[in-house]
Amino acid sequence: MPRYKAVIAYDGTHYAGFQIQQNAHTIQAEIEQTLSRLNNQQHVTIHPSGRTDAGVHAKGQVIHFDYPHVMDEERFRFALDTQTPADISVRKLERVSDDFHARYLVKEKIYEYYVDLSKSRDPFKRLYATHYIYPLDIPRMQRAAKAIEGTHDFSVFCATGTKVTDKTRTVYDARIERIGETGLKFTFRGNGFLYKMVRMLVGTLLKIGNGRLPEQAIELALATCDKKMTGPTAAPEGLFLSEVKY
Amino acid sequence: MPRYKAVIAYDGTHYAGFQIQQNAHTIQAEIEQTLSRLNNQQHVTIHPSGRTDAGVHAKGQVIHFDYPHVMDEERFRFALDTQTPADISVRKLERVSDDFHARYLVKEKIYEYYVDLSKSRDPFKRLYATHYIYPLDIPRMQRAAKAIEGTHDFSVFCATGTKVTDKTRTVYDARIERIGETGLKFTFRGNGFLYKMVRMLVGTLLKIGNGRLPEQAIELALATCDKKMTGPTAAPEGLFLSEVKY
Repeated sequence: MPRYKAVIAYDGTHYAGFQIQQNAHTIQAEIEQTLSRLNNQQHVTIHPSGRTDAGVHAKGQVIHFDYPHVMDEERFRFALDTQTPADISVRKLERVSDDFHARYLVKEKIYEYYVDLSKSRDPFKRLYATHYIYPLDIPRMQRAAKAIEGTHDFSVFCATGTKVTDKTRTVYDARIERIGETGLKFTFRGNGFLYKMVRMLVGTLLKIGNGRLPEQAIELALATCDKKMTGPTAAPEGLFLSEVKY
Repeated sequence: MPRYKAVIAYDGTHYAGFQIQQNAHTIQAEIEQTLSRLNNQQHVTIHPSGRTDAGVHAKGQVIHFDYPHVMDEERFRFALDTQTPADISVRKLERVSDDFHARYLVKEKIYEYYVDLSKSRDPFKRLYATHYIYPLDIPRMQRAAKAIEGTHDFSVFCATGTKVTDKTRTVYDARIERIGETGLKFTFRGNGFLYKMVRMLVGTLLKIGNGRLPEQAIELALATCDKKMTGPTAAPEGLFLSEVKY
C-alpha cells in the first residue's frame, strides 16, 4: 500500500494532546477522521515522530501513514489541509518508500520553548508562551544550559509514567536567546527527548536564572540524580515541536 | 473625582466587540465589572478612544474613567491587569487631569492589519491575520496605497450604520510591508478613521493587488464615490488598534 509522509503544524491549545484517547479531542483523531472520510470511511491510522502533550504545539511534527490509493501529492495535501480544523495545518506531503517510519528513523528533533517576560501578560502570547515576571539572570542561564549538551542519562529530567528503559540521549545544542524586548526563546536540538524532558529542563533553567538553584544545578542533577537540583515542569503552552529530521 | 487613563491590549477573538451590549461578551463589560468589584460594587464607566468591532484586537487601546479613590498607579494597574481575563491586559495606568478625554482629544491613531500568505494556513496566525492564497502584486498595492494619504472625504470607505456626519479624515501614512516570507503588514496612521474604513481599504488594496481592480481604484473611489471601485470589507481578525496618541 502506498506510504505517505506529512509535515503538520498545530495549535495544541484546544487538544488533549496528540495521541488518540477515548472521549478526548486529539490531533490524531482529527487527522485520522479526515483521512478516513477521504478514504470512503475505511479507517487510516497515522504514526507520528512522537506524541506531544495536552496544550503543546507543533510547527513541524512528522507523521506517516499507509493509504490505499496513489494520490497527486499537492492535491492530497490541499484536501487534508483544508478538511482538517483550522488549528491543524498540513504543510507538506510526499509519497515515501515502504520502509520509511516517522518514529524509528528520527535522526534529530528540535524543540522551542517561549517565555513572555512582559510586566503585563501579553494577550497575544498567552497561548504560545509562559508568562514569567520574576527577575532572571539570563547569562547565568546560558552558562548553565551548556551542561545539557552532550550524551547523558537524563532519568532525572524524565517524568514518571514512561515505558522507555534506556534514558540516555544526546543533546547537540541547548540555547537561550532574547527575542525582542520581552521574549525569551529556548532551543533544544537532540537525537531524542524523554517524556516532559524539555519542560523540566526549562523549569530548572528558570529557577537557576531566578537564583533559587545554583548555576551548577543541571550538572549536579545529571551526576547525582538528585531531584532537588531540578525545577518544576514548565507549562505546556510555551512548547513547540519545531522540526524533525531523518 | 480622580480621573485615570489606561492603555489596554486585548485579543478580540472571543468578544462581540469593545462596546457594552445586552447578552454579549464585550471588553467594556469585563473591565467595568473588574473596576466595579474593586470599587465595592459601585459602578464605574469607562470611555475608550473609540470602539473596536467583534473579533478586532488592540495592542494599545486607550480608555479613561473616573474613580472615587486616589490610588497608587502601579498597584492599581497590577490589580486591574491580574483581575481582568487573560485575554485583556492593562499595560499602563496613570492619573490624569479632569479635562483629559480618551475620545475627544485623540490626535492620531495607528491601525495595523496582518495577512498570512502561507500556502497552508498558519495555525498560529489564524486568529491574528487573514489568510490570502491568491497572487498579489505587492508593488502595485504599495503604489495604490499612496492615494489614501492626505485629507479626503472617505464616505465611500465607510460602512452604513454610523451617526458620524463629517466623513473627512486625514491619513498621514498608508504603508504595506512584507513580514518574513509569508506575512504582509498594512499600517495606517491618521487623525481618525470611519466605521470599518481600515478593513474596507485593506479589502480594496487586496483586490487591486490581485488585479481585479485598477491600480487607480482608490483615487477613483474617493473622487467619484463609486462603490464599484472598492473591494469587500476584510475580515476582523487581521486588524489591530496599535496606538492612540494625544
